[in-house]
Amino acid sequence: MLERPALYTDYYELTMAQGYLLAGRQDERASFDYFFRDIPFEGGYVIFAGIADLLKTLQNFRFHEDEIAYLANQGFHKEFLNYLRNFELTADIYAAKEGEIVFPREPIVRIEGSIIEAQILETLLLNFLNFESLIATKASRMKYAAGNRKVLDFGLRRAQGYGGIQASKAAYIGGVEATSNVYSSFRDNIPASGTMAHSWIQSFDDELTAFRKYAEYYPDDCILLVDTYDTLNIGVPNAIKVGKELEKRGHKLKGIRLDSGDLAYFSRQARKQLDEAGLEYVKIAASNQLDERLIKSLISQEAPIDLFGVGTRLVTGQNSPALDGVYKLASVNDEPKLKISENIEKITLPGRKKVIRYSGDDGTFYGDGIVLEDEENVETIYHPYYPAKHATVTTFNAEYLLSKVMQDGELTIDIPTPKESATYAKKRLAKLIPEHKRFDNPHIYKVGISKKLMDLRDNLTQKMKNKR
Amino acid sequence: MLERPALYTDYYELTMAQGYLLAGRQDERASFDYFFRDIPFEGGYVIFAGIADLLKTLQNFRFHEDEIAYLANQGFHKEFLNYLRNFELTADIYAAKEGEIVFPREPIVRIEGSIIEAQILETLLLNFLNFESLIATKASRMKYAAGNRKVLDFGLRRAQGYGGIQASKAAYIGGVEATSNVYSSFRDNIPASGTMAHSWIQSFDDELTAFRKYAEYYPDDCILLVDTYDTLNIGVPNAIKVGKELEKRGHKLKGIRLDSGDLAYFSRQARKQLDEAGLEYVKIAASNQLDERLIKSLISQEAPIDLFGVGTRLVTGQNSPALDGVYKLASVNDEPKLKISENIEKITLPGRKKVIRYSGDDGTFYGDGIVLEDEENVETIYHPYYPAKHATVTTFNAEYLLSKVMQDGELTIDIPTPKESATYAKKRLAKLIPEHKRFDNPHIYKVGISKKLMDLRDNLTQKMKNKR
Repeated sequence: MLERPALYTDYYELTMAQGYLLAGRQDERASFDYFFRDIPFEGGYVIFAGIADLLKTLQNFRFHEDEIAYLANQGFHKEFLNYLRNFELTADIYAAKEGEIVFPREPIVRIEGSIIEAQILETLLLNFLNFESLIATKASRMKYAAGNRKVLDFGLRRAQGYGGIQASKAAYIGGVEATSNVYSSFRDNIPASGTMAHSWIQSFDDELTAFRKYAEYYPDDCILLVDTYDTLNIGVPNAIKVGKELEKRGHKLKGIRLDSGDLAYFSRQARKQLDEAGLEYVKIAASNQLDERLIKSLISQEAPIDLFGVGTRLVTGQNSPALDGVYKLASVNDEPKLKISENIEKITLPGRKKVIRYSGDDGTFYGDGIVLEDEENVETIYHPYYPAKHATVTTFNAEYLLSKVMQDGELTIDIPTPKESATYAKKRLAKLIPEHKRFDNPHIYKVGISKKLMDLRDNLTQKMKNKR
Repeated sequence: MLERPALYTDYYELTMAQGYLLAGRQDERASFDYFFRDIPFEGGYVIFAGIADLLKTLQNFRFHEDEIAYLANQGFHKEFLNYLRNFELTADIYAAKEGEIVFPREPIVRIEGSIIEAQILETLLLNFLNFESLIATKASRMKYAAGNRKVLDFGLRRAQGYGGIQASKAAYIGGVEATSNVYSSFRDNIPASGTMAHSWIQSFDDELTAFRKYAEYYPDDCILLVDTYDTLNIGVPNAIKVGKELEKRGHKLKGIRLDSGDLAYFSRQARKQLDEAGLEYVKIAASNQLDERLIKSLISQEAPIDLFGVGTRLVTGQNSPALDGVYKLASVNDEPKLKISENIEKITLPGRKKVIRYSGDDGTFYGDGIVLEDEENVETIYHPYYPAKHATVTTFNAEYLLSKVMQDGELTIDIPTPKESATYAKKRLAKLIPEHKRFDNPHIYKVGISKKLMDLRDNLTQKMKNKR
């Protein structure tokens, strides 16, 4: 989609990049971490997504002549423009798998490269990872609420512009079964879904004719929208008529869709009417401003809904429209760096780091540890701010969450498909206990740091304070 | 950006389109209206945007062979695929100008075309217009709060994926002065802006060196970020040192930027320190989770901030992440159509319509009337649901908000540039009284309908109810 990504960046990345060059620092190696501080939706976890798109997009990362001409026009120096002209990615990238369950403060992606390239990639990386992780997470919550009922993405019309393309893909990674978005279905090989809108019904003289025509053309994939005129008095009876006619022709009406009114009441009444007519097999789909809490509420009311169509509140994230992921400098030429702050929680973790996930023998996730890259045999992880809180991790199984996905600017993995990432997310979610998944006050997942990392951070902070 | 827009649609648009074709209805002409029901942000108006992008994108609207192959694979009929293969836009489009101030229920865009093409365009149109109008509106509110201080868009890193491209453009149309988004600056000719991030400071051994280096390379465009270590004790004093050094070299420090802490307090203290050092000309920029209410609050506290950098809360719309715009069938072959609903406010306005804006002799907007296309000399407009409320409009100046922008699939206007649309929005906003612009309980702008339109709607509703 973004075929020319080089300018998809904040202006200051380029002014800084030029500054590094003019200061003769172009050969310095920097390490940057991507992490977030808060879980959106007041939830207990985040599903990591966007890395596949990022890696794919980086394959086209170069500066074109018209882009360089634009930068010249902005006043950038000839020396820098020449540098950009010959620019090639040489970075190493370490990343968690797309679909991984991740938590605050963990460096989910680490970019090591020349300080110039690592700087220039910041905005592109943040834009992709923040948004796709946000929507994958939202989708996963909806699917969690829906249980074994299906959830479909109907969001493109209310998505934030072209962001709808990434939203549909991320929603699929997060657990949504299909999308109305044909573009994403075509491009990302996601199942597509959809039948009729009110306009189809309105365009005919009456609803029954509209239903009959649709059933004629789509006898095996017919979901009738029943609320154009009057759901229970007209819509459902007409759908039943058409269902019976389909039976005579050897087909089965697939479903009806409710798109307004009280979905609990209407679905129950409609189910009754359908069942009484012998159409127990006809599914009920429901849509209209649904989100995970409404889905949960409908299910707790035992609304006989088989299929939830979700739109705006899925593809925009609604109540949390952005993940607050950041990209922070962790080292330059192997010298650890940090940003200090009055707010201790905003002090960054310095140095090159890795993330270890600890699991019990039954496979459930116990907690994660952030440790320095060269640490082995970590025995204890500490709460990042209250070292009195710590845990021994020697009895758990350990796995490393980050792996190398790019070396010297070249991919070292096959980029996962959305389907593969969705499968992975599902597998990993199964290892997260329900207490982390619930919507109200989810149990906080343990993310600790090693003693070495804590000492490095605290010594460096002290050193900086002394410098004042 | 969207070079192949034909599949950027909901799946059901295509199943319906195929249905219209199979029913032999491809030559029927339909008229669809785009309108919204609720103003986002609990505001008093919306700035219409996205039409330029839409018209530009429609220039590439055709189905490519690989897209058709995908649809064949989905089970679409040969007859329909052949239809798509030869598909060409033939629609007429009427639209308000980009940058226009618009209100609920007004048909802002009217598409008249074959029922198939008008149906297929729905999702693309909604996606573009809903999002760009949302962000133009949000930006306009921020600019309104900021008054003569500048507002800059820093949102790309937290934008909803590729939607950031449209967000930056729409924000500019709505009144933001410049963007950090280089891609949009390059593509849409929007002023770009940006200087340094914390990483620049961190990457040097100390802040003063980092400031000096930046001032060396950018002596005339130097805005120093002062909160990396300690804003008032280190950052501002270092900035003052560098400002004094720049003076000696015959340059002037442009500004400092605050990105954390209490912006009212820090800006006042920083201003004091700068002024005492004789650097009264140095501007103060502030950023960090700002929105229109925080900007207003800072200004009411007389915080000496000259420049507001806004990000997430601008480019996502934050509290209202979607405009609820819809696209409803209004007529087929000149026969008026409506969708009825238990909720009277959801009954649509049938027939081909136009929108008249009434203004006083001083140019301020009084109210709008929605009337049938062929109505002339409308004397009275009525509240859409309470006809006892009505107003005589004969003493006002009248102008038509919609004009033809496409005929038989061909553009009939020059697509406005973002700059032209921004200028237009500014001009039009000046004609809207402040009571409609305030943030709390804004005065509701009058939008009425003609007697003829009301009668048509009510008679048609009655007719449909009788049909039951």
